[in-house]
Amino acid sequence: MPIVRFLPSNIDVDMPVGTLISDAAIKAGLEDFHLPCGGKGTCGQCLVEIIDGHPETVGHSHLEDALAIKGMVMACRTKICEDTVVRLKKKHDDSMRVVGNTHLLIRDDLLPDSDNLSPTYSIMHLQVPPATIEEHYSDWQRLSYQLASSKPVTTNAVVLRQLAESLRADGGKVTITTNDEDAELRVMSIQPGHVAGIAYGIAIDIGTTTCAAQLVNLTDGRVLASTASYNEQISRGADVISRIDYARTLERQLELRDLVLDSLNALIKKLCTTTGVDSDDVKAAFIAGNTTMIHLLLALPPRYIRETPYVPTVNTVPTLTASEVGLEIYDLATVNCAPGVGSYVGGDITAGLLCTELTTNHEDVFLYLDIGTNGEIVLGNADWLVTCACSAGPAFEGSGIKCGMRATDGAIEYFDISDNGATVKYDVLGDGKPAGVCGSGLISLLGEMFVRGVVDQMGRFNTELPTGRFIKTNHGKAYLLVAGADTESGKDLYITEADIENLMRTKAAIYAACALILDNVGLDWSSIKQVYIAGGFGRYIHIDDAVLIGLLPDLDPDKFHYIGNAALTGAFISLLTRAGRDKLATIANSMTYIDLSSDPKYMDSYLGAMFLPHTNMALFPTVAAKLAEK
Amino acid sequence: MPIVRFLPSNIDVDMPVGTLISDAAIKAGLEDFHLPCGGKGTCGQCLVEIIDGHPETVGHSHLEDALAIKGMVMACRTKICEDTVVRLKKKHDDSMRVVGNTHLLIRDDLLPDSDNLSPTYSIMHLQVPPATIEEHYSDWQRLSYQLASSKPVTTNAVVLRQLAESLRADGGKVTITTNDEDAELRVMSIQPGHVAGIAYGIAIDIGTTTCAAQLVNLTDGRVLASTASYNEQISRGADVISRIDYARTLERQLELRDLVLDSLNALIKKLCTTTGVDSDDVKAAFIAGNTTMIHLLLALPPRYIRETPYVPTVNTVPTLTASEVGLEIYDLATVNCAPGVGSYVGGDITAGLLCTELTTNHEDVFLYLDIGTNGEIVLGNADWLVTCACSAGPAFEGSGIKCGMRATDGAIEYFDISDNGATVKYDVLGDGKPAGVCGSGLISLLGEMFVRGVVDQMGRFNTELPTGRFIKTNHGKAYLLVAGADTESGKDLYITEADIENLMRTKAAIYAACALILDNVGLDWSSIKQVYIAGGFGRYIHIDDAVLIGLLPDLDPDKFHYIGNAALTGAFISLLTRAGRDKLATIANSMTYIDLSSDPKYMDSYLGAMFLPHTNMALFPTVAAKLAEK
Repeated sequence: MPIVRFLPSNIDVDMPVGTLISDAAIKAGLEDFHLPCGGKGTCGQCLVEIIDGHPETVGHSHLEDALAIKGMVMACRTKICEDTVVRLKKKHDDSMRVVGNTHLLIRDDLLPDSDNLSPTYSIMHLQVPPATIEEHYSDWQRLSYQLASSKPVTTNAVVLRQLAESLRADGGKVTITTNDEDAELRVMSIQPGHVAGIAYGIAIDIGTTTCAAQLVNLTDGRVLASTASYNEQISRGADVISRIDYARTLERQLELRDLVLDSLNALIKKLCTTTGVDSDDVKAAFIAGNTTMIHLLLALPPRYIRETPYVPTVNTVPTLTASEVGLEIYDLATVNCAPGVGSYVGGDITAGLLCTELTTNHEDVFLYLDIGTNGEIVLGNADWLVTCACSAGPAFEGSGIKCGMRATDGAIEYFDISDNGATVKYDVLGDGKPAGVCGSGLISLLGEMFVRGVVDQMGRFNTELPTGRFIKTNHGKAYLLVAGADTESGKDLYITEADIENLMRTKAAIYAACALILDNVGLDWSSIKQVYIAGGFGRYIHIDDAVLIGLLPDLDPDKFHYIGNAALTGAFISLLTRAGRDKLATIANSMTYIDLSSDPKYMDSYLGAMFLPHTNMALFPTVAAKLAEK
Repeated sequence: MPIVRFLPSNIDVDMPVGTLISDAAIKAGLEDFHLPCGGKGTCGQCLVEIIDGHPETVGHSHLEDALAIKGMVMACRTKICEDTVVRLKKKHDDSMRVVGNTHLLIRDDLLPDSDNLSPTYSIMHLQVPPATIEEHYSDWQRLSYQLASSKPVTTNAVVLRQLAESLRADGGKVTITTNDEDAELRVMSIQPGHVAGIAYGIAIDIGTTTCAAQLVNLTDGRVLASTASYNEQISRGADVISRIDYARTLERQLELRDLVLDSLNALIKKLCTTTGVDSDDVKAAFIAGNTTMIHLLLALPPRYIRETPYVPTVNTVPTLTASEVGLEIYDLATVNCAPGVGSYVGGDITAGLLCTELTTNHEDVFLYLDIGTNGEIVLGNADWLVTCACSAGPAFEGSGIKCGMRATDGAIEYFDISDNGATVKYDVLGDGKPAGVCGSGLISLLGEMFVRGVVDQMGRFNTELPTGRFIKTNHGKAYLLVAGADTESGKDLYITEADIENLMRTKAAIYAACALILDNVGLDWSSIKQVYIAGGFGRYIHIDDAVLIGLLPDLDPDKFHYIGNAALTGAFISLLTRAGRDKLATIANSMTYIDLSSDPKYMDSYLGAMFLPHTNMALFPTVAAKLAEK
């Protein structure tokens, strides 16, 4: 079989003739190799350079001539024919910006009361009387009796093995841990004496882009450490749809499962190492994730999520064990997942709602926005909830935009345009030169371009403006942001009209979905008491800019409330309180899902939002006023 | 370290100076090496010959001089000091006498009705409607709904993985297997289509001496195959007490667990191989065993079973999985154990009672006898049950009697003595020469010796009788059964007065326990409608002989009813019917246990029974008549 050698890592793999270079790269285990579009040949992000060998291009190639001349090909569209040497593109520094304690963004009264915790896994001190000749009940009977549970009591073989000695070591004093979430009260572990029971839990958020985890002491509710990293599945598709497409065989489902488990187990290891906690003492996990992420974690086939009528295998996952799921904590630890509502509104949303007044306030109406790779919207309060999802696309995650990148070092996160578009100032994350523009930077950029007249209401360049920055590129007319001399790669950073249209589609999808969901319940923007913005995304955007481009509605800025990674905090709350878990079940069962794609009014609403900020300027009075000022 | 070589197998092991030869033999994995007394130096069954090397004897040695001169030592009392060569005794042929379909001995109406089975693991055909845009419930929700269960429904990750494709492969037709024994209804497996579901179960009896198993088709209740073998734990102690003594460390508990698992998994493999059943299709196991056997199977420390106040870790074992227990069937198969009453009346007895009128008849009174290595007795009917256990000792299993052996090839099972004790005829199991006497042979022998006047009522030899068979041995005066010329080993087979006393102690213990339990409830022998004799033992004894020696009461012979391995049949019934399982729980909870050791009347009753057949001949009128005839 031909050998494919990957540079710069010098890794060789034998692959049959006709193998896609992308498949060879995956086989070679190259961590830097990503397939944001899932291998459909549409994103152009899997470009590699052919150093030696003559591979064959499959189907239509989207490559620019200049790249093709340089020997670049798309790995997902190119098959090997003989021994081939391939060089990967230079890797960006993907060191993660970890969001600190996002709990600080949540109202205190919504967080667990440390004096009144009811974790999935609880610790009990029992005094089990000894058996006597007259009352010779077995050890297990006497222990069960002390539990005084109305539910059947059960346990595992490990506890049975330790039972006799534990009951006799300290005069019948034992410390046990139990789980009584389900129909049975399950004794999970036992140790002699009344000891300060050790039991940790882990709250996990599996995002399409990012996984985050918190190690929690279940006895006092303290967060011992938090960490985050990219979801390693990113290399197999940037959004849920690409990943569902990728996961079309059982083998690939298992591959994606392993990738996300690698991410999660690395986080767990890091949390345990940092804090000195033994991973065997982590006795419970609570996971929030969108429906696709949960399916991929459990290696469930995800295809029906995106095939009509769009039903997942499971919304409310039964309690599983850590060893079944593959989490590297105590084998018999319980793993619970926040219940989802449907294919496109998952447990990350129900968990996130626990951090808001949507589940506590009966008087007012609230809006919840989770804008990530996908956009999910919830409207309502403690009495009613409606929800919808919109395929916003990953533009705000830096994907699908020529200069786009994720919010890591080198990303421009803020623009200030002046001199009629001639001067462009910017802020870069980290200390280096700019390498691209992240989501908040794109919002800032679009707002500045609009307000400075660089683009019109339809997002088209006003090329008559003497900016000196309109340039011609292989992707058409563009507005130069940073000249090559000042960038990390030495190449110009620019934005094209196609990019702008992409951003406008995203922002219009989100705004239109919000407008439609309000319309559906007969309310308008003025009814909204507060807008919760969840997700890492919200932390970095400037509300003014987001309103300016019509991504967010033109409301009193005080009504906007960032809550950070609410899905993670919701998992944390659920890990620690029964009230949280019960509420999750209620939310998931009672929430009304509105399918936008089947609503004929959605297209009208969307087209109205495909302007800056909107065709109906009456909806954006402060923006109108600002424009009038100029 | 010195090397210990074992002949004839030529196996070498390195062991530190001071290691017991018995420990070296166990380390060497010698299957023929047994420790019936658990290594206390009391049974003399672990004799080995020292060929080379000078080992050191520990403590008091029970060895006869003649043996010591031949270089024989007890392996459990002898420590190595240097390189040593050891020869094991010739192995008896331990091929098992498998009891066929013991169900034939049980009344038909007590066995499961094949048209009305309710196994622990049941098969259901469901028609799950497809999701629609309007009713977009998840696959799991739609399946759960079809189950229409009042209990919470749960499942495992494997079923979730197969759910989506199974529901779609044949228009929503699926065949599932479920377990709803406990507080939840658990979906255990799923396959597409309405197929004749494949689900097998295994009924297991773990005896102290013998393990038996039946492979059962759970859909029609058919027994596909039955098999039995010795419990490999025998090599670590012949009775439960010896085995508890042996299991004094966790390491040894695990060793004993592994030994019995070896036995059980060999049976399972044999059953599956014979029938062509895939062991992964065996979805449920039901186990009957005495309390010690269940503890050793689960590697629970057994010591408290024999320490006051004699309470086991567990009587009613929670449902476990096959992988937890170590049975090599479907990993997630449920494993249930018949509940026990206490340390000395276990699940083998409750299971056995399912095969009798003790659990169905409200009018009459019945006696249940399980005479094996231990003796358990139950008296009562469907309204009340009392039980007791007596440490009969393993004499009837051939242990503790010089010429005793288990009921395998070479064992004499029947004696006919005539000519005033001068002529001894016998029947041998198998085709070979006699090697020893098994339980039924010993009963027959004692009866014949008594009725022919070879022994008196107290079991003492009538040496004035001109039998020509009274000989002097290293064990004292003996009655010659078979001269060395006619035996397998070339050595005389004989019985000593000490052997006779041992047998009388055993029979007296059983009779006295029966008498006392009757007395306890104010009844006498005439109240008994029927005596059930369970256990492999019962199959081979001759009632006449057993009555003659006062082991069994002098009742109408029609009242005695053999039911074979009732524990196994009880496990079979429980595997197949919920009524059986429910009844087991009721029996275990309601049975009154009488502790003989704390009853001052027991010794009187026992001493009365230490005669042939009894001090009170009025209790044995037919025996009295038979003796008067002579």
